[in-house]
Amino acid sequence: MKVAIVGATGAVGTEFLTLLEERSFPVTSLRAFASPRSAGRTVSYAGQEVVVEPLPEDGNLGADVVFSSAGGSVSLAGAWRWVEHGAAVVDNTSAWRMDERVPLVVPEVNPEALEGHQGVIANPNCSTIIALMALAPLHRAFGLKRAVVATYQAVSGAGLWGIEELRRQTAAALAGEPVQPEKFKHQIAFNVFSHDSAVGDDGYNAEERKLLLESRKILGLPDLAVSATCVRVPVYRAHSEAIHASFERPVTADAAREVLAASPGVRVVDDRDGNTFPMPLDAAGRDDTLVGRLREDTALPNGLALFVSGDQIRKGAALNAVQIAETLFGVVPATAKRAENASPVAV
Amino acid sequence: MKVAIVGATGAVGTEFLTLLEERSFPVTSLRAFASPRSAGRTVSYAGQEVVVEPLPEDGNLGADVVFSSAGGSVSLAGAWRWVEHGAAVVDNTSAWRMDERVPLVVPEVNPEALEGHQGVIANPNCSTIIALMALAPLHRAFGLKRAVVATYQAVSGAGLWGIEELRRQTAAALAGEPVQPEKFKHQIAFNVFSHDSAVGDDGYNAEERKLLLESRKILGLPDLAVSATCVRVPVYRAHSEAIHASFERPVTADAAREVLAASPGVRVVDDRDGNTFPMPLDAAGRDDTLVGRLREDTALPNGLALFVSGDQIRKGAALNAVQIAETLFGVVPATAKRAENASPVAV
Repeated sequence: MKVAIVGATGAVGTEFLTLLEERSFPVTSLRAFASPRSAGRTVSYAGQEVVVEPLPEDGNLGADVVFSSAGGSVSLAGAWRWVEHGAAVVDNTSAWRMDERVPLVVPEVNPEALEGHQGVIANPNCSTIIALMALAPLHRAFGLKRAVVATYQAVSGAGLWGIEELRRQTAAALAGEPVQPEKFKHQIAFNVFSHDSAVGDDGYNAEERKLLLESRKILGLPDLAVSATCVRVPVYRAHSEAIHASFERPVTADAAREVLAASPGVRVVDDRDGNTFPMPLDAAGRDDTLVGRLREDTALPNGLALFVSGDQIRKGAALNAVQIAETLFGVVPATAKRAENASPVAV
Repeated sequence: MKVAIVGATGAVGTEFLTLLEERSFPVTSLRAFASPRSAGRTVSYAGQEVVVEPLPEDGNLGADVVFSSAGGSVSLAGAWRWVEHGAAVVDNTSAWRMDERVPLVVPEVNPEALEGHQGVIANPNCSTIIALMALAPLHRAFGLKRAVVATYQAVSGAGLWGIEELRRQTAAALAGEPVQPEKFKHQIAFNVFSHDSAVGDDGYNAEERKLLLESRKILGLPDLAVSATCVRVPVYRAHSEAIHASFERPVTADAAREVLAASPGVRVVDDRDGNTFPMPLDAAGRDDTLVGRLREDTALPNGLALFVSGDQIRKGAALNAVQIAETLFGVVPATAKRAENASPVAV
């Protein structure tokens, strides 16, 4: 398959290149696109250097599948034109997520939404994907009614510069030098701050609104009640979330653990005696979303409390998008084949 | 007044010394006690060096008021014996908080609980104090029913060593060296982990249980529903909390803001346009608890979402204890006198 990556030099773009190779996506040609100021640089794919091109005026990316993560304005302007030239577009920006023509997909949750797609498929917001990896199987078992979410979000969500800014600020703070925020408005080293997306008239910021609206669309629950407080923490690349959820039917910690243990893409980490639960450091670089701290909630009726950590760049972005493409084209990833071969029950 | 500090070399003990001077507490003599291994060291109070003593066998600390923060076992063994020798004991450990003979007090919230005390007064858990600084005035106005809390807790809560361990781990991580946790079980540099207190059979840890039980006792609401997820973050000394609360009566963000703006010890930081809200870095070293992110909650009936940051060592520990002593003995702190003199309405 002819593959194009739009935004190839960014944090998510780089991860696309790693994942396509790691999962042996059947790539016959790979083109890398980015903004004109990055054109001419090279990116690495499967041991080859690929020269980064500016986006062509005519919208013809010469691709069967486009992975796009160059920002909302690029996807807004380009996505349907890339489709006109024969590509399926898996868009990692927020540009088309709430558009009625566009499926919003987490392959483990709602792969059926891909049926009859019109060319553009949206990859959900990272916090939403990571929350739903745990909440969707619980919803199927117990009927989700409401969720209160507090996030602990890594700086990678802001882009590669977020990682660099955390590192630079931390070094300055340790050296006793004044810390000068550059792109983030507030100091992130040894601090936490409310998520750096725009705040609406109701006081919720854009990240929090995505958790509400995207969860409703993905789960097909237009009346689902979600309230989130999204917070940036000095962590490099995995997001964590404290979730307190309320269900139609009673749910015990044991029943929830059983459901989650059987859910693909989820790994239960819930060692009460050892005080070991999901941590962003353990989730970084992994495909699975870690879920633990399972408790019958003491405040919400039919409630369950839990804590999740997931790699924001992988499952929260690039991995989920590649999985969408795999589902769309019936591609079985090499990692799944390897896992099958390694299984003791495999022939 | 004759003052004794038990645990004088710890993070909270050191802050007691600072606060007694800063607030001109009427100290006629000051004795500093700590474990035998710290005996002989000196601590600074009002420009003087005070030699640290081991606790006397007979329980006579020669004090009118004892501030105790040497750990639960020391307070369990000593508190009532210190009282027998004529002291009022303000205990900053969890030893006596839930004891029926012992008032559990936040002076802005339930000073009336001090009436008829029997000598030992308990200072609440830091996360509980900081949450109630916002929730108590809201309760008086709207009737608190339930609260879902997710914390972002500083390492200072574990003691001075927590601060040192975060600094050491961060330096190692920045240098690309392996990070070796010493006292914390898990890496705290560039990571978050579930609070390092023991986990009970219901999955809640001790910190989360305190938020439930202490809030009920302080507010006099035995049926109050609280569910918390307590998390350690790489921040030095102020705790933050995302709170989603549900009330008897409808509450708007504006009405809540008005109530909080009129509450002593609270500072509203709620700049939506400037995306500036409570942050631990701004709360550190301050007396006021910062409250913001006020939103009508999209998940809870009659709900309000908010975010608070408070200095864990000050209002979360030493300041609250000193305020208890001031209330008990009718001492007006110098800071209040200074504030009054500075006020444009003062004569």
